[in-house]
Parts: sequence; structure tokens; C-alpha cells
Amino acid sequence: MHAFQRFQQQFTTYLERHPFAGQPPALYEPVNYILSLGGKRLRPAVVLMACHLFHEEEEAALPAALAVEVFHNFTLVHDDIMDEAPLRRGQATVHQRYGLNAGILSGDVMLILAYEGLLQAYEAGQAADLLRVFNRVAREVCEGQQYDMSFESREDVSIPEYLRMIELKTAVLFGGALEMGAIVGRGGAENARQLYEFGRNAGIAFQLQDDILDTFGDPEKFGKKVGGDIVQNKKTYLVLKALEDGSDLQRDRLRHLLSIQPSDERAKVEEVRALFETLHIREKAEQVKADFRQKAHRHLEAVKAPSARKAVLQELADYLLGREE
Amino acid sequence: MHAFQRFQQQFTTYLERHPFAGQPPALYEPVNYILSLGGKRLRPAVVLMACHLFHEEEEAALPAALAVEVFHNFTLVHDDIMDEAPLRRGQATVHQRYGLNAGILSGDVMLILAYEGLLQAYEAGQAADLLRVFNRVAREVCEGQQYDMSFESREDVSIPEYLRMIELKTAVLFGGALEMGAIVGRGGAENARQLYEFGRNAGIAFQLQDDILDTFGDPEKFGKKVGGDIVQNKKTYLVLKALEDGSDLQRDRLRHLLSIQPSDERAKVEEVRALFETLHIREKAEQVKADFRQKAHRHLEAVKAPSARKAVLQELADYLLGREE
Repeated sequence: MHAFQRFQQQFTTYLERHPFAGQPPALYEPVNYILSLGGKRLRPAVVLMACHLFHEEEEAALPAALAVEVFHNFTLVHDDIMDEAPLRRGQATVHQRYGLNAGILSGDVMLILAYEGLLQAYEAGQAADLLRVFNRVAREVCEGQQYDMSFESREDVSIPEYLRMIELKTAVLFGGALEMGAIVGRGGAENARQLYEFGRNAGIAFQLQDDILDTFGDPEKFGKKVGGDIVQNKKTYLVLKALEDGSDLQRDRLRHLLSIQPSDERAKVEEVRALFETLHIREKAEQVKADFRQKAHRHLEAVKAPSARKAVLQELADYLLGREE
Repeated sequence: MHAFQRFQQQFTTYLERHPFAGQPPALYEPVNYILSLGGKRLRPAVVLMACHLFHEEEEAALPAALAVEVFHNFTLVHDDIMDEAPLRRGQATVHQRYGLNAGILSGDVMLILAYEGLLQAYEAGQAADLLRVFNRVAREVCEGQQYDMSFESREDVSIPEYLRMIELKTAVLFGGALEMGAIVGRGGAENARQLYEFGRNAGIAFQLQDDILDTFGDPEKFGKKVGGDIVQNKKTYLVLKALEDGSDLQRDRLRHLLSIQPSDERAKVEEVRALFETLHIREKAEQVKADFRQKAHRHLEAVKAPSARKAVLQELADYLLGREE
């Protein structure tokens, strides 16, 4: 068992003991449903781990961890509506199961419940510090989602724009989760800042890896269908880099392939993948991922906390991003 | 000019000077759009008025007033999606103009912006007090919306359930707005509580009046089409009271009328209205409204603040609820 799994387990137990309740039950049932679908609980686990760097009893961070997980699940509920996704973690999405209106409204109340958890568990000064981080991150996640949606209809998305989008949509929440853990652990402003940067950079690396694995991953290990991004014509880092580095002919061909929805998906996936290989896109993406990973590592090094405790966070990063070669 | 109009004007000026901005603009444009559609700005005005009871300079309450108005408009954006409403204040609703996804996402960011405004404008202790009220009210408004939606498909809604629904969906936000104004004005916990109760009871009376005017109002004065609730088969107080007081025959007829959508709406509206008149439903609704209004009045009386300043709030209540006979 990895050392970080203790924190995941600790959170899962807490979550199971704290279902949301209230009247009318129809409002809260979808909230408990989406939270029960599982997932790796990475974001709440890093809240606890960041707190533990500075504080023997990381239990104090459990309400903050719950707020982060509830917020994350709120974004899943509303994003699934926007993406018209029928499935989430192999089960029906909230709007699929309970209807569009319940999806919107239970998502709304989850956002409110996340704030409520922070307000109720911490004294005013600490709550204000936590809420400032939480609020900034929440706003940025919405901005990231808006960029993501508008990129679908844009043909001129640049790589810096893409990196900014995944930073906002995915990475800042990891950064914010670590920062909040540091605040609960009273680790001080500079350590909180370094942890935020660790999470933000690791989060970008994590999303880049997701892009890579979606196209080049081992079907046995990768949870989702390999090639799904290509089938869905997503503008991933791989696509944008190929458009940047390819010849006019290759660019035109790639643009064409990513505009069609043929019945034979496999032929399309294979051709796009072959084009990526010709242009060494995988290696280039791995290099950018490694750069962000390296940055993340340096920020964790700069955190003033016992090395043994920091090692647990490093171990999680290595586990998520693959062992360094 | 009424004395309370100064507060409405003061807020409108502030709102116009504080448009929301950020990247990408597509996220914030619907926010400024819905806020620009006008409305009476009652909720933000009462925040200022409540602050002014205890504090010479009510400007301190402007950010709280803005948070309340942004929250109220967030609920309009998401409710309009749930109601599939094409128009709001005579203009296209957000989802109609910008699409479903923009409606969901810009609503989400409005909720976040409301919290942000409170966090940024007030010191930690006061912010925590304001956020606790705001958060409780926000959650209750969601609960009210869920009740309202589930009542559509229920045939056994009781009058107490209906009153609880309008309390949650409409009245607690008026109460919370007043309570927040009192907090900014440092009027003390007991005054804040009395003002909350004033707003909550007046809010219920206000919604009952809306039910009455929708069916019995003067078409020239009432903003919306008279009889709209009957056409839409809404379970208003009038309907529920008629179902309670009517004979089996009258009940069956009313249930039938409120299950059909005939091409001749006028005949249906006239028949339902005639049934209400036979059962003296208008008078009974007016009586319940008067009871809540009376309760509201007593709570305002109990507030320890200069009578001249309280008179402005009483004047607004009288204006909104009709002069006492």
C-alpha cells in the first residue's frame, strides 16, 4: 500500500459518514448519488496531505477536503450537462438519471454546500483565508470551462491558450486544494504558495499525460477507451502541436480528419496516430509534461516541512505522472 | 418621489459603475446582460435601507447589496432554464440568447461572484457573519425551487406546503437581505433577527399578493398578463384554497380545468375566476396576506432604530403590498 492511500481512505470513510441531508430529499439525493460514484478522491486526499505537512492531526482538514470534493463533483454534474454525457464513472450522469432540472439545481446546491462546509468548520479568520482561495479557484474553473467550450468552435487555438485552459479547468483546483490544506495546517503563507505552485504545475502535467494516454495509452491500463479524444475531434495538446509542426498538407489532412465522424472510427484513429508519430508529437508532449513535472518538483522542494512527509506527496505525484525515467 | 427610491437609485448607479469583467469575455457578457435588464432592485435597496437604520453612511452596504442582486439574478438565469422561459423582463432570457451551456455556466459564475463580493468588501469577522446568512438563504432558495418543481407533478399539495415553498423560494431572500444590511450597519443580533422576520413575512405577503393580482389584478396596472397563472395551470394559493373549500363537484371541475390547455384561454380563465368568486377565495387570500403583513409590521416595530428611518421601510412595504384599507 502506498503511503498516500491512507489519506484517500481517511477521506472516503469521512465522506461515507457525512451524507448530505435536508428537505426536500429530491434536492439532496442527486448530491449523494454523484458523490457515491467513487473516483480516486485525489483532490481531498491532497488537502489532508498538505495539512499533514505542518500538523500532526490532519483530521482538521477533513471539512476542507469535503468542500473541495463537493465542488469538484459540482463541476462534473454541470459539465456533464454541457457535454451531453450520459455516463460518468460507468454510471448514469445526474441529468441522465434525474433530469436536466435536477442536474442544474442539485449542482447549484452543491456549490453552496461547499461554501457552507468551510464556513461552518473553521473560525472566522481561517474561514476567510480558505474562502478566498476557494473562491478564486472556483471562478477560474468556470473560466477554464468557458475556454474549453469556446475552443470547440475555434480553428485558431494556440498552444499557450490550450495550456492556460487546462491550467484553469483542472490544475488550479489541485493547487488550491494543497493551499487550503496548508492554511488549515497553519503552514504559513510562503509554504502555502509553494504548495499551490506544486499542485498547479503537477496538475498541468497530469492533464498533458491524460492527453497522451488517451491516444497512446495501454488499453488494459487506461480507464477510458483509447482514441476517444480523436473520435470526438478534441483539440488536445497533441492535435495543436501537430497543427503547429506539420506541413501544409499534413495540417489540411489532420483538420479534415478532425472534422468528420466516420462509421469506421478505427481507421481514423490509426491515421491520426500515425501522423502524430511521423511528427514525433508524443515525444514533444512528454517533454512538455516533464518540464511542468520538474517545476512542480522544485516547488515541493522549497516547502519547509519534514522530508518524510513531503515524500508522501512526491510519491503520489510519481504515481500519478509515472515514475521518472 | 418616495423616500425609498433614493436607495434604489443609489444602488442602480453603483451597479452601472461596477460591471463584471474577466477572461474570457464570453463568460461575463451574460452576467452583465441579465443584470442590465433592470427590475425594481428591491432586494439590494432593502440591504441599504436596513444598514441605514443604524449607520449614517449606508454606502458600506453597497457590496452586500450587489451580492444579493447578483445572487437573485443567478436564480433567475437558472430558473428560466428550468421553466424553459424565452423572455425575462420583456427581453430574451440568457439561455435563449446565449445558449443552454452559457446559461448554466454564467449562472454558476454569478453565484461565485456573489460570494466573492462579500469576501472582498468586508473584514473577516463581518464577512463570516454575512456569509453565514447568505449561505443559509442561498440553500433555502434552492430548496424552494425544488419544492416548486415537484409541486407541478403532485396533486396533493397542502396550503402549509405551499406557504413553505414561497417562503423558501421568495421570502427568505428578502429577510436575508435585510439581515445582511443590519450586519453591515452593526445593528446587533436582535435587530438583525427582527428585520429578517419583517422581510420574511412581508415577502410571503408579497408573493400572496402576486397570486391575487395575477388572477384579479387590473390589466392596466399589473405588469404581466392577467390570468397567466390559470392558463399555465399553476397551483397558486387561490387554487389550493378553492380545492380545500369547494364541494366535490367544484373540486373535480377545477382539477379538470387546470389539466387542460384549450385554444380558448379566456373562457377557461373566466370560469376559474367565477369559481373563485363563488367560494370567496379572493377575500380569504387577502386575509392571509393581511395576517403576514401584520406580522411583518410588528417585527419592524420591534426594531430599535430611529422611527423616521423605519418609516422608509414601512413606506416601501405599503407601496409593495398596497396601502392598508
